[in-house]
Amino acid sequence: MLDRIKIVKPAEIEKNSMATIEKELNGRTWPEPQFSVIKRCIHTSADFDYADNLCFSEDVCKKAQEAIKRGASIVTDTNMAAAGINKKRLAQYGGKVYCFMADEDVAKEAKEKGCTRAAICMERGAALPGEVIFAIGNAPTALIRLYELMEEGKISPALIVGAPVGFVNVVESKELIMEADVPYIVPKGRKGGSNIAATICNALLYTMPE
Amino acid sequence: MLDRIKIVKPAEIEKNSMATIEKELNGRTWPEPQFSVIKRCIHTSADFDYADNLCFSEDVCKKAQEAIKRGASIVTDTNMAAAGINKKRLAQYGGKVYCFMADEDVAKEAKEKGCTRAAICMERGAALPGEVIFAIGNAPTALIRLYELMEEGKISPALIVGAPVGFVNVVESKELIMEADVPYIVPKGRKGGSNIAATICNALLYTMPE
Repeated sequence: MLDRIKIVKPAEIEKNSMATIEKELNGRTWPEPQFSVIKRCIHTSADFDYADNLCFSEDVCKKAQEAIKRGASIVTDTNMAAAGINKKRLAQYGGKVYCFMADEDVAKEAKEKGCTRAAICMERGAALPGEVIFAIGNAPTALIRLYELMEEGKISPALIVGAPVGFVNVVESKELIMEADVPYIVPKGRKGGSNIAATICNALLYTMPE
Repeated sequence: MLDRIKIVKPAEIEKNSMATIEKELNGRTWPEPQFSVIKRCIHTSADFDYADNLCFSEDVCKKAQEAIKRGASIVTDTNMAAAGINKKRLAQYGGKVYCFMADEDVAKEAKEKGCTRAAICMERGAALPGEVIFAIGNAPTALIRLYELMEEGKISPALIVGAPVGFVNVVESKELIMEADVPYIVPKGRKGGSNIAATICNALLYTMPE
């Protein structure tokens, strides 16, 4: 039974995966580090739709990596994305990962205001000192609140990774962010998720000098 | 700009999403709780491939839910899946979620043996007392090690959620599990991920009486 399994050394697994992805992209390439972002999204989902749906604002990767070098933190709307982002790597530049979703006072405030916890979490993120990257992998309401906070002049994110997933206001909230004056990386359409939000952050980190 | 956003109460978001998924499945249905597992995988990925790729062994949901009622724990190969599984809900029945991936001695042992950390983590899981559900969202090597441990008569999992994602041994490792004598839920092919592994566990939990 086990003879169908290819023997691959642990260190080779990712390399071989990336080679397969490049082969199946049939020669399509993008400038780095954009190409790495696209390949990592495919790697984490086995879904080649990400070759077509990922949208990048002008010079976004360079701008985001410069912010990370200056110590930018990352605020996310899901504990799964927070678990997936390489926190050690981010800490090398001084940044931390924050997710306020499980905080009790967030749940309380959301209930009082009749909005989602994710929206309240964005307000918590807006109050952080220093530069902030918002990595959204679940809630369209997080993107909508970020848009409102930008309109009110209360935040100026270093980057918005706009990757909520699903069927209610997901497409629309991503369009809002792509029309705003903010550096963004967005998989347009319904797809995304906490795994995609985390992998986009990691792709940026892994293409920076250590 | 914001007028394109539909006003939906937080509690209604998931309900509306599920209604959209059911509509786009064009009347296709499955017996419960299998249908809930399929819908939740689509909900978490916006990828309707899960309507076709999910494979269930005979009576697997019933068997798994009975094991959970008896206090089964869940062992996973990724911290992201561990973050995503509803631990409070599992704890109501006495179970815990374990992920050994970040343990220092796991990294050390994997290096010494020239295998992946995930394979070592499965051995840690095999040593737990009581019934165990293995929820694999990343590493084919975890599934391969589980297969070997079953062949050696060392484990008898209550359920294997076999949802590694990717391009190296993913398809083959899933086939191994589906040919073994074990209750399984497997998205056949390349797709899966820690979000899928977590959502399958949650779908089982959410269709049980509290």
